[in-house]
Amino acid sequence: MRIRIGILGYGNLGRGIECAIRQNADMELAAVFTRRNPADVSILTKDVPVCSVSEVCNWKDKIDVMILCGGSATDLPEQTPEYVKWFNVVDSFDTHARIPEHFEHVDKAAKESGKIGIISVGWDPGMFSLNRMYANAILPKGRDYTFWGKGVSQGHSDALRRIAGVKNAKQYTIPVERALESVRAGENPELTTRQKHIRECFVVLEEGADAAEIENEIKNMPNYFADYDTTVHFVSEEELIKNHSGIPHGGFVIRSGKTGWQEENSHVIEYSLKLDSNPEFTACVIAAYARAAYKLSKEGQTGCKTVFDIAPAYLSTASGEELRKTLL
Amino acid sequence: MRIRIGILGYGNLGRGIECAIRQNADMELAAVFTRRNPADVSILTKDVPVCSVSEVCNWKDKIDVMILCGGSATDLPEQTPEYVKWFNVVDSFDTHARIPEHFEHVDKAAKESGKIGIISVGWDPGMFSLNRMYANAILPKGRDYTFWGKGVSQGHSDALRRIAGVKNAKQYTIPVERALESVRAGENPELTTRQKHIRECFVVLEEGADAAEIENEIKNMPNYFADYDTTVHFVSEEELIKNHSGIPHGGFVIRSGKTGWQEENSHVIEYSLKLDSNPEFTACVIAAYARAAYKLSKEGQTGCKTVFDIAPAYLSTASGEELRKTLL
Repeated sequence: MRIRIGILGYGNLGRGIECAIRQNADMELAAVFTRRNPADVSILTKDVPVCSVSEVCNWKDKIDVMILCGGSATDLPEQTPEYVKWFNVVDSFDTHARIPEHFEHVDKAAKESGKIGIISVGWDPGMFSLNRMYANAILPKGRDYTFWGKGVSQGHSDALRRIAGVKNAKQYTIPVERALESVRAGENPELTTRQKHIRECFVVLEEGADAAEIENEIKNMPNYFADYDTTVHFVSEEELIKNHSGIPHGGFVIRSGKTGWQEENSHVIEYSLKLDSNPEFTACVIAAYARAAYKLSKEGQTGCKTVFDIAPAYLSTASGEELRKTLL
Repeated sequence: MRIRIGILGYGNLGRGIECAIRQNADMELAAVFTRRNPADVSILTKDVPVCSVSEVCNWKDKIDVMILCGGSATDLPEQTPEYVKWFNVVDSFDTHARIPEHFEHVDKAAKESGKIGIISVGWDPGMFSLNRMYANAILPKGRDYTFWGKGVSQGHSDALRRIAGVKNAKQYTIPVERALESVRAGENPELTTRQKHIRECFVVLEEGADAAEIENEIKNMPNYFADYDTTVHFVSEEELIKNHSGIPHGGFVIRSGKTGWQEENSHVIEYSLKLDSNPEFTACVIAAYARAAYKLSKEGQTGCKTVFDIAPAYLSTASGEELRKTLL
């Protein structure tokens, strides 16, 4: 019997989950739930129902793990504690500063319902967090660096699109190569915001908009661009669609540290991701943790978990014996 | 109260453990055990006893975790199942093919004694295994590559030193840059042994030895060198000591995979280590898992575990709350 997965919210992430389920033979898509009119939502998998979120409770016994694909700003803080009353759930809550309170809410609800809720799954938070944690435990005397990119920042692209006179735009976050090299060389540099990342913008102007003025407005936008070296390219709508429609991302988590009686030896641990599709990769991580949620629940565990709390073997389809034989 | 660590076997790894304990404020070195005459073994930590292995059972209640620093060929297959009768233990058993039987032996003994035995801890097996496993769970459609180096292979250096006419030698394993680049580019190459690694040898000859003959013997040595592009440099003993006394190592674990409804998107996950001291880094990983052994034992868990079976949070001194706040 396969793990029956529900998807709640069918945007880029939801579609990514649908694709990931197709690659995991031990899983099947049971249903997709949407706030839109279900008749207006067409999914990729044949013969799987699209339902209104209002019906979700009728699926209580027909879904093993519900994957919540809403946004972190307003959806997940409400949805995860709510739906864990009915289902084992996994979310990708990524507002780092609010993770502690989100954990508390989900933990309380999950313990009451006897379900498992795994929060903040993806690559950051997620795989990057795991790698920061392992590296910190291994090298207590050291220093952490996280670089993002090259990749599309949705938040920064949205900020560009809110400027009057901007018709469309895409923003890439790019790590500064020199900074990466210094970190990799174990030089333990102190890096300012500007020294770590570059921001590159591709902007389509509305007819009659003043390019120089908009460029100036972008480069001086507080929080988003003012603290960075920012380049702005004005392009046609066709060019934006042709060359900048993807949602690639990635990044680097590096810890360098010292060992030895006099701390005479240097070590560098590096984890990096190069992703063609940010939401599809996030979805793959979530699918693996959905398997973990299923197994943990079968064992009778309850409450909120993060990637830190789950032994790696839970993510795999292989038995402990197979893992020791083939991957250890 | 700190975690009381015992070290059994005081070579490079044992000294590495001693240094690691110094960097972990929640641990203390209780005693070092040796098969040599304890009077002949001088350790770095002041006021800590060096004892004969024959006395080890007297320390049953004075040590929380015993770290076994013997070799995988003959020491650990005997020692780990034996000492887990008395102590929680961690070893770095690294004969990949024999891990399943080693696990069975340690698991049986540990379950009988009510102790925890964590085996095959280090970086390969260890952190590399973990990264292979996570990456496989995340990208089911993909391919794994492991490259080692640049680093000193003790096995290959020993093989060189066994050749008649060779006085001393050091062998470096070096990944082939072109192969690494192809893998990182997601090209999924088929790579032969020769295409993955180069072997570079620094050899000191005995007086009167025939360099050409020895070079030929090295390059054609089955298993060790014949399947590789091998370069041989003849150097003086002084040069070998001056430039090749370190024990650096490292390597790369890369998985590239496809996602999307038609597998149209590529992703590359890469984990790499660059280590000045192979044994000191291995020791750091072991120290973190010694903490896990202590915590697992306090919870009443027993039996044999590997890195796959242990939730990451067990390696850390920080509470779940702190981890969520600072590293997630």
